[in-house]
Amino acid sequence: MSERKPPRSRGRPRPVGPAEKPAKRRARHASGETPIWLYGAHTVIEALANPRRRCRRLLLGPEAAQRHGPRIDALLAARRARDPAEAPSLEAVARGDIARNLPEGAVHQGLALLARPLAQPDLRDLLAGPGTRGAAEGRAAEGRAVIVVLDQVTDPQNVGAVLRSAAAFGARALVTTRRHAPPESGSLAKAASGALEHVPYLQVGNLARALETLKTAGFWGLGLSGEAEQTLAEADPGGALALVLGAEDTGLRRLTREACDIVARLPTRPPIDALNVSNAAAAALYELLGRIRGTGGPNP
Amino acid sequence: MSERKPPRSRGRPRPVGPAEKPAKRRARHASGETPIWLYGAHTVIEALANPRRRCRRLLLGPEAAQRHGPRIDALLAARRARDPAEAPSLEAVARGDIARNLPEGAVHQGLALLARPLAQPDLRDLLAGPGTRGAAEGRAAEGRAVIVVLDQVTDPQNVGAVLRSAAAFGARALVTTRRHAPPESGSLAKAASGALEHVPYLQVGNLARALETLKTAGFWGLGLSGEAEQTLAEADPGGALALVLGAEDTGLRRLTREACDIVARLPTRPPIDALNVSNAAAAALYELLGRIRGTGGPNP
Repeated sequence: MSERKPPRSRGRPRPVGPAEKPAKRRARHASGETPIWLYGAHTVIEALANPRRRCRRLLLGPEAAQRHGPRIDALLAARRARDPAEAPSLEAVARGDIARNLPEGAVHQGLALLARPLAQPDLRDLLAGPGTRGAAEGRAAEGRAVIVVLDQVTDPQNVGAVLRSAAAFGARALVTTRRHAPPESGSLAKAASGALEHVPYLQVGNLARALETLKTAGFWGLGLSGEAEQTLAEADPGGALALVLGAEDTGLRRLTREACDIVARLPTRPPIDALNVSNAAAAALYELLGRIRGTGGPNP
Repeated sequence: MSERKPPRSRGRPRPVGPAEKPAKRRARHASGETPIWLYGAHTVIEALANPRRRCRRLLLGPEAAQRHGPRIDALLAARRARDPAEAPSLEAVARGDIARNLPEGAVHQGLALLARPLAQPDLRDLLAGPGTRGAAEGRAAEGRAVIVVLDQVTDPQNVGAVLRSAAAFGARALVTTRRHAPPESGSLAKAASGALEHVPYLQVGNLARALETLKTAGFWGLGLSGEAEQTLAEADPGGALALVLGAEDTGLRRLTREACDIVARLPTRPPIDALNVSNAAAAALYELLGRIRGTGGPNP
């Protein structure tokens, strides 16, 4: 690309030609040109283990080196074996040197990794890929296909915690909006505790349209709303399902709700009848994906 | 009390006599002599509505006054009708004046309330009281008795979120340790979103002993651990149950685990097989308390 750029343009902003639309620029940003700091043991180790994650610098404090050294050495060796350019520089530093690069109060556990955000797959490509292909068949050999959809949930810690539950219960992806939702970041990745490397995180321009795409691919659209009559267990149609959750204060937006086939609620009781959004997602994913793998307990 | 204190002792620390043991001092602190700032709409409104909550000052920003004014006026009127000393002073202030009293970044939504921490009931008194009396009978008219027990979970936001899920699914209390667990605070109360006024929060000196007390009262002690063989749905014995969760990194301590009758896991899958503790609590409470109120869906 630098070969095609005339030397005189260096050092000043390159004009954006009429051929490059805003959406394309956003996509380029989302596909990870600006590196971010990931931190925390699970988060950094899972990132190093992910061949799709491009890493530049790994900062390692003394206690973390002692505790995770062999695992990290093996992961770096595997990266070097694939491609020497794929292994980040390993920098043994004091704990304070790590904190300097991170937001105040970040719990880094002695590990920080400068890495590029992951390329976000296109929803159609994701649906055609392994794991969700033939999703409409539902509870097939690979298990039930559930995709989590968040409607303008803004807090990165909540979104990260939802990603973690999605990974733990085996959901296939997390879809959210490009606006009013957090991009991939250190705090989101920390709350996800490694799940960002395993569950595709997609930010789309139009959530209602994404739901239509999912429905065309054979997914039911099921929105969670405290005002619904039926509980999730009553309303669950089985099969491939997009579980849609809104922000705590505003809930599902009208167009999002209208794009859902079904609206259902969790069986909570007043006066505290709304859960934190990540806890609602955990309970709902347990209902949709957790129970069917058990052999069944004494509950009906 | 000031009448009994000799004037000469004012202005310097009053010596603690040999008759007052540390445990008693802790109990006095826990019973709420030091006021704390509560903030956020749900948190403040539920606190004002709680007759057991002693309130001193209510700071109200302009937008919050417009949005919640009538509800707050009614709650203050009810407090004055009970006892004029029970109504906090109402201070209309600018938003910035609220933030000055709170931790940096606190999301106060224009409401802050200076209040005393709630008196924590004794576990035996709680078990003898309404709601848990006859708990051993299990799924009686009042529903199943479940008490959540947290073993050294230190993050106030996690503990607050667990309280919120406990209230939403109808758990009877949250029991945790006096050490290595957060006291009642603004950030805990904010995460609980009003649930602190509805679910008793007990901090005990010895968690294993508290579990023995619960078992004597007819509760099963069920610990959640990722290493257990049976899933929660498989292992659930029915009836009154103490659900015990440990900190994410360290899990259940040995003595806590030994005090449990049963150890079970949530049906998560590798490599991300551990949930955030509040999400684990939400999924487990859904299994124990959520499903039995539904009429049953297509799941077995």
